[in-house]
Amino acid sequence: MNPDVPSLEMLRSLNELAAFNRWCGIEVAQADVGSVVIEMPWREEVGQYVGFMHAGVVGALIDTACGYAAATVAGSKLLASHFSVNCLRPAVGDRFIAKARVVKPGKSQIFTSCELYGRAAGKEVLVATGETLLSVVSK
Amino acid sequence: MNPDVPSLEMLRSLNELAAFNRWCGIEVAQADVGSVVIEMPWREEVGQYVGFMHAGVVGALIDTACGYAAATVAGSKLLASHFSVNCLRPAVGDRFIAKARVVKPGKSQIFTSCELYGRAAGKEVLVATGETLLSVVSK
Amino acid sequence: MNPDVPSLEMLRSLNELAAFNRWCGIEVAQADVGSVVIEMPWREEVGQYVGFMHAGVVGALIDTACGYAAATVAGSKLLASHFSVNCLRPAVGDRFIAKARVVKPGKSQIFTSCELYGRAAGKEVLVATGETLLSVVSK
Amino acid sequence: MNPDVPSLEMLRSLNELAAFNRWCGIEVAQADVGSVVIEMPWREEVGQYVGFMHAGVVGALIDTACGYAAATVAGSKLLASHFSVNCLRPAVGDRFIAKARVVKPGKSQIFTSCELYGRAAGKEVLVATGETLLSVVSK
Repeated sequence: MNPDVPSLEMLRSLNELAAFNRWCGIEVAQADVGSVVIEMPWREEVGQYVGFMHAGVVGALIDTACGYAAATVAGSKLLASHFSVNCLRPAVGDRFIAKARVVKPGKSQIFTSCELYGRAAGKEVLVATGETLLSVVSK
Repeated sequence: MNPDVPSLEMLRSLNELAAFNRWCGIEVAQADVGSVVIEMPWREEVGQYVGFMHAGVVGALIDTACGYAAATVAGSKLLASHFSVNCLRPAVGDRFIAKARVVKPGKSQIFTSCELYGRAAGKEVLVATGETLLSVVSK
Repeated sequence: MNPDVPSLEMLRSLNELAAFNRWCGIEVAQADVGSVVIEMPWREEVGQYVGFMHAGVVGALIDTACGYAAATVAGSKLLASHFSVNCLRPAVGDRFIAKARVVKPGKSQIFTSCELYGRAAGKEVLVATGETLLSVVSK
Repeated sequence: MNPDVPSLEMLRSLNELAAFNRWCGIEVAQADVGSVVIEMPWREEVGQYVGFMHAGVVGALIDTACGYAAATVAGSKLLASHFSVNCLRPAVGDRFIAKARVVKPGKSQIFTSCELYGRAAGKEVLVATGETLLSVVSK
């Protein structure tokens, strides 16, 4: 086993180091080799002008989940090169759940994708999809 | 002149309505027909785990600037369908400046693009580029 | 049933109308509501400079499969607004199979995604993924 | 001067090696450090079902121009990782001109962008924009 590949506990510690993730209240709920689930409760400060979650926070959840998924196969020395977000439906919910997986791991690049769900009245609705291309930082 | 097309003052009011933009400290610095400039001071809470600005906040600035640029030609009844971000360099600076412009306005879709600069020691460095495709919300 | 939604036979006729698809040898193999499979045999003329399939043809297969998947839910009055391609592995094979599905149908926009496989020695390998955002053309 | 960085003549020779580029009739018109212009005459076989240029060929021109622009700063050992295309207007014209430039060169990744024009009745109209992220192939 690669000692650099973070466990669920290590991802949680990593997550605590990111000031923005702490402010958002992002939690790492699950981590397996090649996939993770993160969650975030709704709070008013993440809203845009009609009260849906801001597209930037949608992107932050997708980028964060993708980064952690990549870390489970390639360690944490990674930087996002490119990410994209499809805004499928208004991002509403009392809680948001981002499920990311590695599409293709590589020596220098990791391709990942993510689905973001908003939970309202106990029901999860797919509100956005996205993908992130991460580069392995060479030592 | 289309009365629905917001002036600089109207964009500033619109910006004040978005809780996340207020929290970030985003300001609308300039607005012309087809282009806007927005700015945001650095604050610790927008950092990721090594202290650069979080990619999600990079995306929020790009998405916000693109949306305002689109509003100057199509009014404010717009929703982002898709946005993407290229992370060119670590997003560092004491202030961030996003310059967005309309690439192609249309009846139902507006294509926009944006450059994001980080200012450090009085010098602006291009840290990210991105684009947003917005849909005109039909009444 | 929406009479404008094409059946497998109608997609095949539509496919025959596109000169580039005919030249490529693209065939519609399967079509259900919300998903299609198209296939294309390798031919030397679709190669790039080291003999893999040209990224443009990779994009053409993804865009075509996504468009047909969208047509199965929204009819054929559609135009691609945006598409993107992830080049995961060298696109090699004696045959290429693109499997597309609708991620989110809408009144004015259809979000789709696609996986492209290269078949070599009887084995299918994922060589690319992509997505296309289509607009419904208003009459 | 980096001997691996291709001159206009070397790009033209490289272009001749790609079977698809030859079939399309792609020509390298201009090359400077960080930017290139390629051109292609219209031919019926590149059409989609209503006679516009196929989105795949639009993508091929953008991907090709971006790759050559990257080659002018990083040599020809490059592979596209990701590319995206915005279809702004129907791709019509008797000739297509793709103008690509390097947005950010790096040791392992090159960010590029491109504008595609269709020329009709002597007038160039912007029909698509796109971008390509290229990876430097390590020896």
